[in-house]
Amino acid sequence: MATTDESFSTDDIRSDEPLVHAQTVWFDEPLSLERGGELPRIRCCFETWGTLNADASNAVLVCHAVSGDSHAARHDEDDQPGWWDGLIGPGLPIDTNRFFVVCPNVLGGCRGTTGPGDLRWVSRGPEDNGDGDPAGGQTATEIPYGADFPRITIGDMVEVQRRLADHLGIKKWRAVVGGSLGGHQALQWVSRYPDCTQTCIAIATSPRLTSQALGFDVIARNAIQTDPHFQGGQYYGRPQRPDTGLAIARMLGHITYLSVEAMEAKFDPDRHDPRQIASQFEQRFSIGSYLAHQGQKFTTRFDANSYITLSMAMDLFDLGGTRLKLMETFDECTCDFLLISFSSDWLFPPAQSREIVNALTALDKRVTYAEITTDAGHDAFLIARDMATYGPLVQERLWQSTQKPQDTGSPAAKPNDTEPPVQLTVAEESILDLIPAGNSVLDLGCGSGELLAAIRARHSNTPMRLMGVEVAQENILATAMRGIDVIDYDLNNGLPAFIDNQFDVVILNATLQAVENVVALLEEMLRVGKRAIISFPNFGYKALRDDYVTRGRSPRAPGEFDFDWHDTPNRRFPTIADVHDLLVKMGVTIDQEIYWDVSQSRHIDAGETPNLNADTAVMVIHRD
Amino acid sequence: MATTDESFSTDDIRSDEPLVHAQTVWFDEPLSLERGGELPRIRCCFETWGTLNADASNAVLVCHAVSGDSHAARHDEDDQPGWWDGLIGPGLPIDTNRFFVVCPNVLGGCRGTTGPGDLRWVSRGPEDNGDGDPAGGQTATEIPYGADFPRITIGDMVEVQRRLADHLGIKKWRAVVGGSLGGHQALQWVSRYPDCTQTCIAIATSPRLTSQALGFDVIARNAIQTDPHFQGGQYYGRPQRPDTGLAIARMLGHITYLSVEAMEAKFDPDRHDPRQIASQFEQRFSIGSYLAHQGQKFTTRFDANSYITLSMAMDLFDLGGTRLKLMETFDECTCDFLLISFSSDWLFPPAQSREIVNALTALDKRVTYAEITTDAGHDAFLIARDMATYGPLVQERLWQSTQKPQDTGSPAAKPNDTEPPVQLTVAEESILDLIPAGNSVLDLGCGSGELLAAIRARHSNTPMRLMGVEVAQENILATAMRGIDVIDYDLNNGLPAFIDNQFDVVILNATLQAVENVVALLEEMLRVGKRAIISFPNFGYKALRDDYVTRGRSPRAPGEFDFDWHDTPNRRFPTIADVHDLLVKMGVTIDQEIYWDVSQSRHIDAGETPNLNADTAVMVIHRD
Repeated sequence: MATTDESFSTDDIRSDEPLVHAQTVWFDEPLSLERGGELPRIRCCFETWGTLNADASNAVLVCHAVSGDSHAARHDEDDQPGWWDGLIGPGLPIDTNRFFVVCPNVLGGCRGTTGPGDLRWVSRGPEDNGDGDPAGGQTATEIPYGADFPRITIGDMVEVQRRLADHLGIKKWRAVVGGSLGGHQALQWVSRYPDCTQTCIAIATSPRLTSQALGFDVIARNAIQTDPHFQGGQYYGRPQRPDTGLAIARMLGHITYLSVEAMEAKFDPDRHDPRQIASQFEQRFSIGSYLAHQGQKFTTRFDANSYITLSMAMDLFDLGGTRLKLMETFDECTCDFLLISFSSDWLFPPAQSREIVNALTALDKRVTYAEITTDAGHDAFLIARDMATYGPLVQERLWQSTQKPQDTGSPAAKPNDTEPPVQLTVAEESILDLIPAGNSVLDLGCGSGELLAAIRARHSNTPMRLMGVEVAQENILATAMRGIDVIDYDLNNGLPAFIDNQFDVVILNATLQAVENVVALLEEMLRVGKRAIISFPNFGYKALRDDYVTRGRSPRAPGEFDFDWHDTPNRRFPTIADVHDLLVKMGVTIDQEIYWDVSQSRHIDAGETPNLNADTAVMVIHRD
Repeated sequence: MATTDESFSTDDIRSDEPLVHAQTVWFDEPLSLERGGELPRIRCCFETWGTLNADASNAVLVCHAVSGDSHAARHDEDDQPGWWDGLIGPGLPIDTNRFFVVCPNVLGGCRGTTGPGDLRWVSRGPEDNGDGDPAGGQTATEIPYGADFPRITIGDMVEVQRRLADHLGIKKWRAVVGGSLGGHQALQWVSRYPDCTQTCIAIATSPRLTSQALGFDVIARNAIQTDPHFQGGQYYGRPQRPDTGLAIARMLGHITYLSVEAMEAKFDPDRHDPRQIASQFEQRFSIGSYLAHQGQKFTTRFDANSYITLSMAMDLFDLGGTRLKLMETFDECTCDFLLISFSSDWLFPPAQSREIVNALTALDKRVTYAEITTDAGHDAFLIARDMATYGPLVQERLWQSTQKPQDTGSPAAKPNDTEPPVQLTVAEESILDLIPAGNSVLDLGCGSGELLAAIRARHSNTPMRLMGVEVAQENILATAMRGIDVIDYDLNNGLPAFIDNQFDVVILNATLQAVENVVALLEEMLRVGKRAIISFPNFGYKALRDDYVTRGRSPRAPGEFDFDWHDTPNRRFPTIADVHDLLVKMGVTIDQEIYWDVSQSRHIDAGETPNLNADTAVMVIHRD
């Protein structure tokens, strides 16, 4: 049963095996650290998949989460599982047939890249430099850094990865990708090096931790640092390590990775029925024995000083607490963005991804954002089922403007090859005619992106800024799969992501009738767009009036009006005259009105009493 | 500024002063414990307010939460603050001018009632019994119970409180009231002694903990029990206590008491600006220094063994994980219930209070339930602002069928004295006529309870089971203030609280047009009620048709139809014929149809083309 599956947790899909495919490189240039101090010499341990192409344009950097490592995916069938096997591999979204994938262990960790458990390196002093020593003027002491390991930041982690890129001959990444702390690294890369990558993909992440998440980290560090075996961090070589504190820290982490619903499904049916394990920790309750097991297991593969180092780096991470600050952070970025959050993630709640999205949209960066509906909590980014949902978004974003591999037998085709055909109504065709080449266009309630795709096709020789807003997950995915930027927003909450006059045209096509806050949304459209185009079914259409008067039923007619009164998706039923009245009352200028009887594909002239004879209206409006 | 106020936390409003108003009583009869073993002799420490009346019918038991104590309220102006000062006092909801209020410290705690820190009592053996020793055959040893304190349950806590009631001469409580663990005690009282109280008020509580909350408790106990100074619980008399573990446990508790929004407001603006305190714990970040301060402070007033004892009692508490089990739990209760939850409480989420409410409504118990909208999290039950919102519900419930005090100068009047007058439309009057005396009635979307109040007034000599369902907080409060049971539910989610054929009549008055899932709700009404009465505005009314046809606008008319198309609260617009068609299609029997032109207070006969001439329809329906 899926709900009691042990693998329903990040911990179990992270390898604790030796990293047999890892390579190691030493960087002998001292690294000056963001918060002061330096690391004289750094080892970087990493894994790669696929082949770097001739112009080094196909390299994808994958960044791991706090207790992850470089083993992101299997290298072959006999290999240990990786933590992103569902995403990285031949024909998968991060396609190792076409990309050269690099996943380094982070600075400060305990999986091969320099961290607190390593022997300390010191400079020999300037007089000793340049003597041809392979360690470049540095020498290793006999004792590990321990608690003397300097305070590092996510920026410092990125610096090491940058040296790795130089070492591998990579000038610019095709993409930088990561979830959780990995997402922080991806965002740090582009904020520090605005031209470092073509694409930035940040999953289940945030501009900085919530105070709640920060509080959990503080408690976890307190548990480790007050463990009597911690010994101020110099426990290496002693008979006992601060395993108790580290296990408690990990137990706490585990709860924050799961949603309350997922925990309920996993532990509630047998809450009084603990698993039998040997432990110094309480084992009463199934959740108790599970936490004891996970906490203990973690101490066999992770170092307490690394945990403190990495969690503190995460806690210090702060791209900005306001949109203005975040806009400064990302101002110069040249990449496009994909952000993904998970509905039940309460450690990195979707609202935090939206903060980043709001800043990026205000900067007019290319960005797609989807909130995936799941009960798997923060862990979702590592869960196969959720990977299957969000993977296509990663794939589409990476495969865009990327050469196909020579191996055309690749099991997955480029998504645009199978893009569904676009079928527009005559009213939608007339919207198309209203948009000149080169205009920037925002389509609110864009559905599966048909209209935006048609605009792109019409002006295929002119680059145009096209963007959709949607709230239904399947529509967001469908629009993104067309290669069109789309963000996940409920129009009833206004358009907080956008700034004044950001788009040449804002479209509301066949959506007005489904909106609750009509006036507020129209005002927002007129704020964000230099012009707005609204298209809506006219509930003053004669077939409806006839039906209403003669049948005495809630009016109904074929086409857009063919719903039962008790389950129509519509909640507003305006006539052309109603909308006209409202726009006049709002002081809006109506630039153009186009009327259609779509049911007969017939244009209705202004003199033909459109309020009676048109079933659809298109209005171009603006506010002076 | 309120958001940075230190008092925005339960901890700061709980006294750590000596309990100068506390009284003590010893119970010499051994207490057999629910999970085995016994406590030979028990001390109970408690506080009281007000005066017990001659027939001992005015006693209210107040039960405290896990780290609270008997000092629930000030005894006079010079007294230390109590933790429920906003609720208990002269003229307050738990009015000490009319009630005799009793608040005991819980068994297993560390505030005077027998707990792990007390010297252990042992039986002297049967041969020594009855020798007139004031300790009744028991003798104290020289060592505290410590970890040998037996595992107690919330049922055991209730047993001690029951002895206290006997001691005070209280046969039946006017009310048993509590929040969080105090709510657990209140629920345990009525499940164990179904006739023990007239009213049970359970606030911010649950039938059992979520697996998430259980997990946090397990981690807290692990932190205490692995503290090297814990010494298996026998740390009394030693130079050091397990203060580190206890402080970490308390830090964790603190986070769970606050909502993520409240933490953000309190700590985010100055996140990098810690308060200056002396501590062994990490003080970086404002949240870090706050947690260090709270954790340390707690160790000066609380005993680690008590914390373990009480949290384990809470974790073992389990009134049932299914509605059927909960129905068995409360089956024989004779009291009425008030349940209150808080929207941002994630430790005891509102859904858990609903589980209890669903069981109680299925049992046809008298119950009112309100989910209070607040960002204060679990702590809300102790926050003055939220107390001011939910206090009136407590007051109304307690003052019902209670004699007024002799002191008529009491600052607060009985709410029913100021009950707003009821004004019904002619259509509503006709609903009234359809309900015989003695019928049980459920009113869906009951508004402020006017129709139910009118039914009660019409049949004032006949006891009738009347109940409302509402979703708007102000309407729930208004209905409850009339002394009518009401529960907080969104009709779009069906009627899961109710069982088949539970009510003689289920009413949906002027609400059909605002519901999204019309068919599902009608089916639910026909399941729950032997008969259903629906009353709705007829959107086939001639004034609307005329308006629509002649003006070409979304139809509008005075009265129920006088809304702008773009901000009407309605989302369905059926005519009488529409509803008639639907009911026929659903296979529902229509027993009676009554039509009104409410705008002219005129009855419309069936022969007068009601679909055209009535503005309001009343239909009585049932399913065979």
